[in-house]
Amino acid sequence: MTAYTATVTVRLKRGVLDPEAETTQQALERLGFELEDLRSSDRFEVDLDADDAESARERATEMAERLLANPTIHDYDVDVAEA
Amino acid sequence: MTAYTATVTVRLKRGVLDPEAETTQQALERLGFELEDLRSSDRFEVDLDADDAESARERATEMAERLLANPTIHDYDVDVAEA
Repeated sequence: MTAYTATVTVRLKRGVLDPEAETTQQALERLGFELEDLRSSDRFEVDLDADDAESARERATEMAERLLANPTIHDYDVDVAEA
Repeated sequence: MTAYTATVTVRLKRGVLDPEAETTQQALERLGFELEDLRSSDRFEVDLDADDAESARERATEMAERLLANPTIHDYDVDVAEA
């Protein structure tokens, strides 16, 4: 068993409204910053033991499917690195 | 002016309690997943126009300092890529 860190990034699908990101963008603009767009996403770093990177990735993907992301409104990426 | 995307990752400093991550970890364990630890962080992708990557990075760093992160409890990273 090797220790891996799986990073799951969960973002809203294109077209889903993101009022938090909009508010953040407006607040930055009010402070005088110029920006074209702002998107926010959640990142989960999961430390887990697995036989190899492929099985760590499978496990993290299942975590995303079952709990971390809502497939109706979210897309997600999984990256795996040895810890 | 070139279009850049600056990615600002905001995470809690080591030692700051993270009840959301703890709850997420417990929920995953209740679903039968085995994991050692889970950390959560926020990611902001900011699209901006700048003369070069260095000035895009400076601007995104200032956004992090002034609004996106709370320096008392957060660390942050800034990555810049051409959009």
